[in-house]
Amino acid sequence: MYVRRNIRASHVFNDSWRFLLAVGFWSGLIVYLFKFQDAEFLAVPFLPVSTIGIAVALYLGFKSNSSYGRWWEARQIWGAIINDSRSWGNMVCHLVHDESGRVDHGAQRDLIRRHIAWVNALAYQLRITTRLKVKQETRIFDYRRDMEHHDFHQRKESYLRYLESEEIEIVEKCTNPATQILRLQGAEIRDLTLDGQLDTYREVAMTDMISRFYDSQGKCERIDKTPFPRQIAFFGTVFTWLFVVLLPFGFLDAFQKEVGQHNLVGWIADDYMFALVPFVMLISWVFYIMEKVSDSTEDPFEGGVHDVPVSALSTTIEIDLKQMIGMDDVPEPLKPIGDVLY
Amino acid sequence: MYVRRNIRASHVFNDSWRFLLAVGFWSGLIVYLFKFQDAEFLAVPFLPVSTIGIAVALYLGFKSNSSYGRWWEARQIWGAIINDSRSWGNMVCHLVHDESGRVDHGAQRDLIRRHIAWVNALAYQLRITTRLKVKQETRIFDYRRDMEHHDFHQRKESYLRYLESEEIEIVEKCTNPATQILRLQGAEIRDLTLDGQLDTYREVAMTDMISRFYDSQGKCERIDKTPFPRQIAFFGTVFTWLFVVLLPFGFLDAFQKEVGQHNLVGWIADDYMFALVPFVMLISWVFYIMEKVSDSTEDPFEGGVHDVPVSALSTTIEIDLKQMIGMDDVPEPLKPIGDVLY
Amino acid sequence: MYVRRNIRASHVFNDSWRFLLAVGFWSGLIVYLFKFQDAEFLAVPFLPVSTIGIAVALYLGFKSNSSYGRWWEARQIWGAIINDSRSWGNMVCHLVHDESGRVDHGAQRDLIRRHIAWVNALAYQLRITTRLKVKQETRIFDYRRDMEHHDFHQRKESYLRYLESEEIEIVEKCTNPATQILRLQGAEIRDLTLDGQLDTYREVAMTDMISRFYDSQGKCERIDKTPFPRQIAFFGTVFTWLFVVLLPFGFLDAFQKEVGQHNLVGWIADDYMFALVPFVMLISWVFYIMEKVSDSTEDPFEGGVHDVPVSALSTTIEIDLKQMIGMDDVPEPLKPIGDVLY
Amino acid sequence: MYVRRNIRASHVFNDSWRFLLAVGFWSGLIVYLFKFQDAEFLAVPFLPVSTIGIAVALYLGFKSNSSYGRWWEARQIWGAIINDSRSWGNMVCHLVHDESGRVDHGAQRDLIRRHIAWVNALAYQLRITTRLKVKQETRIFDYRRDMEHHDFHQRKESYLRYLESEEIEIVEKCTNPATQILRLQGAEIRDLTLDGQLDTYREVAMTDMISRFYDSQGKCERIDKTPFPRQIAFFGTVFTWLFVVLLPFGFLDAFQKEVGQHNLVGWIADDYMFALVPFVMLISWVFYIMEKVSDSTEDPFEGGVHDVPVSALSTTIEIDLKQMIGMDDVPEPLKPIGDVLY
Amino acid sequence: MYVRRNIRASHVFNDSWRFLLAVGFWSGLIVYLFKFQDAEFLAVPFLPVSTIGIAVALYLGFKSNSSYGRWWEARQIWGAIINDSRSWGNMVCHLVHDESGRVDHGAQRDLIRRHIAWVNALAYQLRITTRLKVKQETRIFDYRRDMEHHDFHQRKESYLRYLESEEIEIVEKCTNPATQILRLQGAEIRDLTLDGQLDTYREVAMTDMISRFYDSQGKCERIDKTPFPRQIAFFGTVFTWLFVVLLPFGFLDAFQKEVGQHNLVGWIADDYMFALVPFVMLISWVFYIMEKVSDSTEDPFEGGVHDVPVSALSTTIEIDLKQMIGMDDVPEPLKPIGDVLY
Repeated sequence: MYVRRNIRASHVFNDSWRFLLAVGFWSGLIVYLFKFQDAEFLAVPFLPVSTIGIAVALYLGFKSNSSYGRWWEARQIWGAIINDSRSWGNMVCHLVHDESGRVDHGAQRDLIRRHIAWVNALAYQLRITTRLKVKQETRIFDYRRDMEHHDFHQRKESYLRYLESEEIEIVEKCTNPATQILRLQGAEIRDLTLDGQLDTYREVAMTDMISRFYDSQGKCERIDKTPFPRQIAFFGTVFTWLFVVLLPFGFLDAFQKEVGQHNLVGWIADDYMFALVPFVMLISWVFYIMEKVSDSTEDPFEGGVHDVPVSALSTTIEIDLKQMIGMDDVPEPLKPIGDVLY
Repeated sequence: MYVRRNIRASHVFNDSWRFLLAVGFWSGLIVYLFKFQDAEFLAVPFLPVSTIGIAVALYLGFKSNSSYGRWWEARQIWGAIINDSRSWGNMVCHLVHDESGRVDHGAQRDLIRRHIAWVNALAYQLRITTRLKVKQETRIFDYRRDMEHHDFHQRKESYLRYLESEEIEIVEKCTNPATQILRLQGAEIRDLTLDGQLDTYREVAMTDMISRFYDSQGKCERIDKTPFPRQIAFFGTVFTWLFVVLLPFGFLDAFQKEVGQHNLVGWIADDYMFALVPFVMLISWVFYIMEKVSDSTEDPFEGGVHDVPVSALSTTIEIDLKQMIGMDDVPEPLKPIGDVLY
Repeated sequence: MYVRRNIRASHVFNDSWRFLLAVGFWSGLIVYLFKFQDAEFLAVPFLPVSTIGIAVALYLGFKSNSSYGRWWEARQIWGAIINDSRSWGNMVCHLVHDESGRVDHGAQRDLIRRHIAWVNALAYQLRITTRLKVKQETRIFDYRRDMEHHDFHQRKESYLRYLESEEIEIVEKCTNPATQILRLQGAEIRDLTLDGQLDTYREVAMTDMISRFYDSQGKCERIDKTPFPRQIAFFGTVFTWLFVVLLPFGFLDAFQKEVGQHNLVGWIADDYMFALVPFVMLISWVFYIMEKVSDSTEDPFEGGVHDVPVSALSTTIEIDLKQMIGMDDVPEPLKPIGDVLY
Repeated sequence: MYVRRNIRASHVFNDSWRFLLAVGFWSGLIVYLFKFQDAEFLAVPFLPVSTIGIAVALYLGFKSNSSYGRWWEARQIWGAIINDSRSWGNMVCHLVHDESGRVDHGAQRDLIRRHIAWVNALAYQLRITTRLKVKQETRIFDYRRDMEHHDFHQRKESYLRYLESEEIEIVEKCTNPATQILRLQGAEIRDLTLDGQLDTYREVAMTDMISRFYDSQGKCERIDKTPFPRQIAFFGTVFTWLFVVLLPFGFLDAFQKEVGQHNLVGWIADDYMFALVPFVMLISWVFYIMEKVSDSTEDPFEGGVHDVPVSALSTTIEIDLKQMIGMDDVPEPLKPIGDVLY
Repeated sequence: MYVRRNIRASHVFNDSWRFLLAVGFWSGLIVYLFKFQDAEFLAVPFLPVSTIGIAVALYLGFKSNSSYGRWWEARQIWGAIINDSRSWGNMVCHLVHDESGRVDHGAQRDLIRRHIAWVNALAYQLRITTRLKVKQETRIFDYRRDMEHHDFHQRKESYLRYLESEEIEIVEKCTNPATQILRLQGAEIRDLTLDGQLDTYREVAMTDMISRFYDSQGKCERIDKTPFPRQIAFFGTVFTWLFVVLLPFGFLDAFQKEVGQHNLVGWIADDYMFALVPFVMLISWVFYIMEKVSDSTEDPFEGGVHDVPVSALSTTIEIDLKQMIGMDDVPEPLKPIGDVLY
């Protein structure tokens, strides 16, 4: 998650300069061919280009809308994980007691510890499937993934350290560790019930909460493993590039008419034609950025610049739960690195 | 579900070449008639064509939005089936026990086995109503259905193998096998209650979970049996073709003006007119693809390229549940075939 | 619900020919006045007409979106009725038993029978308020209501046949029979509780399910009795007609310019002007159909071509429930009539 | 709620004639200055005006969408109140009994009576904050509020008549009577529990229902007390007027070009210029109505023409509940007044 | 929340005059260079500028839609807090009693008092992270934050005054005071259960309500701490400014054509060119305001002019709860300051 209110110009520049250079070169070439190589036939009327531009803008609007929906849903799911974790903490503290009010503090700490393990296991599982490459410079759209900070869920230790050795053994054998950690919670709930620390009613209430965690986990995996429909995303990019490539041809015609109207001659007319280059660059850049924006919220669990900061959220949960139960080793909240919170 | 991030050019080509050829021929014919048969009256002003183009683009935006909503809802329902299946596994493992903690392991396995049968029966029922034809080559939009891999829910065995013979007898008699499998689960829950393995409270909790499965099943059937409103889908296609057919007439006029403006004469002018053919092809192609994209997520349970991969998701559920209860015959996750996961 | 994937051309034609004839005559008249009665002042520039066309297309997009939302919500509610009915069947079969497991089969059948009565009463109540006229030919947009098939919820018998005589007496006295049938279910639940067939916990669980049926009924009535806001619908139609009426004036001007540009003279110029007639017809038709599409999903419970097939869905529920409880008189699923399922 | 399918022309006329007159006068003035006072500089090119028109249409689309969402949410909340009221009736009838099945009919009637009081108190509270003025003639957009029919929740008696004198005393002291009526219901539930008419489980089930009523009440108040964001609504109106004011300037230019093209001279040219007046009126009217439509669903609890008919819905609830419990004084459903249901 | 129906012209002016001045100066400069410094090459055709304008309008529509969604969600969450608070009040009053109906009034008041503390702590925590500067004059878009009224949740006392000293000690040590206040509520619930004032069933019902408060708190924090995606917001502003900067260039060309068409000469022609300045100002202003509107609902918890009035809502809760339990020190509802409710 990018945390500065206004995006640094340098970060935008990192993304844009290659594109602007390429478009500048391409439109310059077209003007050169038109003016100095008599390639008059290159000019096409602007109205069709404008029509396609509006159609592409509409398409990008649809793409932005859908992918923003995915991103916001992802953020909501992690919000629900935070809320349910706090409720879990409250339940562990206050519903687990026998009829006379005696409390098994060891079991309570186990339920909390294992929950923190689950949150971190989930975060780790979501992050390992990333398609992002590591970039040294901060960018806005060409995602950057931080690999140097080990707490950022790039290693198995991020959740294994919260498990006991026999638990690790069970969990490591299975395809989906997070699922199995929750099952271990379920087993503890049953044992507490048989011990009299929970009655059947409170047992079901806590089992319901585990069902909600399965729910949140499954929702995260749904977004993580079902990419944004490739046909929608891919052709959005293709259409944008198509429009950018066509743009100089349409501009040739439009500027040529201006030359006629203002009776420009000689080198002034020639120079005037080259004035279309910055205009093509600007308008192309608007569509290029629109496409990138629609793209940026598409897959929200990859650890990129605009993705849901699951590492930071996991730490928030850990802090809240440990303070609730009165544990000592409360960690610090995570800090943004290069204006990005992971 | 198409799994590659960028769609292979060859796959796009498989869908597009026939269309491009047809449009090229059509616009070439129009130019020929205009230039060499003096059919000057064919030229129509571009602005009305542009207006209709924007209206069609707006309509396709509406269609894309609605059909994407259907696809995402379908994916969410199967997500809910996965999550509830895991919760079901947790409940079966930890809520089914008598007051002293003794557990009926046979009944637990039956509840899991029958649940896997239900998931596969549902997947089978969704797939059999497909309107897709089998295609050998991978395409993006002319859906391809895989018929050779029997695990992909094309045969009744995909769920019957998880049922016992007397259960098969009951289920086969009925219109909707999946509904009846869930009823058998309900009967088992009642029997466990009468046996003392569940108290009335845990009984209702597990009956609630069965209600959620009925819910998910019914939601899948709703999307499967209520096609996307035909009037919306059909006229989207009609409007697109209408626009594509009109496009060369509008371009004739626009390019003719250019000829006048640049004072082109002789064969250069003729050649220039034919330059509209690639432009018509490009712009037509953009609208053609937009229409196909809006179409591609319309009916998400047919086993096509972009549809919800219910076979793969069923296997995921089977793996998770079997590992939960400690069964041995855990299957492998399904692999994509020709970049498509079914 | 129209069930064919592609709409038959004849069905479209039934809706369109009157409109096309009228538009053809209107634009022909305008051209005639312009060319042969020197009514030159009729030509207006096309750009304002284009602007209004885009505004109308945007408005129709909004209208389509909202009314599609209504239709899909209606379909979801009936989906929920199906799902909850199956859960109801499951509960009736497996939760109604005394402590020793003895079951009152008569009461179970009553609960199922009365539920089928409720579903049919609801369907009947939704259908009787229709504003549709009976049409003999199948159309796409000028709705057709089937009156000849009595099972299609046009008669009170469709639900009264599932009630006993004393129940009919109670129900007939009240304004809203469906509400009262559910109340009778509630009374039966209470009686079963007092008989010991339900404990207080299962009693509340079944009362909750009755609340869900009240919910679904109320949601249907909300959509049925609150028409789509008339101001939105009405002015959508008015704007479309306004645009259609203005279109030939704008085209006059656009085609006149073409005549000038191509130096057409004499009867060719005259003929050319008449060439605008088919263009006006095509573009008008696109907007006309857009408006009809936005209209077609507006009120989904009227028994029209595109409406929610509540009769077919009621039969589905009846089949499922009767097979669940093992009744004999299982009906056949309803068949489409003239490509339309009611 | 306007109840006729097609809006009466007279009702539309009531809203539009002042506007049309003003626009006609304004554009006539502009033409006069342009033609007869040589104010040639008044003509501005149409394309910028068209651009602003499309931008305004997009903005109005956003505004319509959002305010339609508010209206539909308001209608859904009242739908939920109806559904929950019926469930409440069912619960009161069948859950309130002691272990041997004896029933306190007095308490049941009190619970129903007080509920009807709550519904009417809520309706009254929503209506008193209206900003509408009383209009004698029916209009579509300049809202009309009916003040003559006292049952339409303009008086405190509409709910006080359902309360007993000591209840009135308690309720009148508080800021929010509806909240306090629900609290009285809660007190009755507790007393019934202590009397043995409810066990703890049914007590909580009925308390949950009270929570749902608090929920619906709060949601109504949210929409009622948080107006549609003023900046969105206000600038939508400002932009529309701005466009309407600019329109004649753009038309001057467009029609002037026509004059040149058709070589009109003398008084025909002058007359032709005045032909722009009806066109400006038509196009302005489309935007004016679009703005009014977007405005019409903005605040749905004010008692206006298009607002949620809370009086009629309250009466529906009263009828259903009284018939459920077998009371005698069942009222008639409310009738529309001047095509409007309040 | 801005409370006047129509926004005061003076408030709009406070926001707009700097912008209008800047645009006026900029477009005047362009005209000057064009006319008097022979910088003819500055004119660019209007159609590309129009295309970019429509694309920007579409983008702003997407941005408005998304940020309005955030604002409405924020308002809904606070609505839920109000509703649940009333339900909480009802539960505290009527569910907390022992089997013989005796009530611990002290505990009830503690549960209410601590709840008011939680609401105020939440409001305080949401407000302290604001990025707004204090402005003396009321504006519409350049947010103003009121710092002088201490009840508006700018000080810790706003919630500490409702806590007892030992509670303050616990709460102050933790990162997130609101979370810990809810945990104290949970502890009180457990103690009341052990005291026999709640049975296990009512205990779970009240614990569920605490989970709902955790839910609402977490949802507020989600919106507060996850700003609207910076890339979407930032580039919306950039695109708008880009369009505003380009506009005069496009107008130069459009007005120059008018000059040619109307054969204006001399100082009239010069003056006419300067007539584009007000038009550029008007159209720029429309886009400027559109951008500001889309921006205004982006971050709804900062205490700005259009934000959710959490201070006023907190007071509403306090009034309702205190009147419910019969406390004396009921505060006055908050009043708007300078037409703005905080």
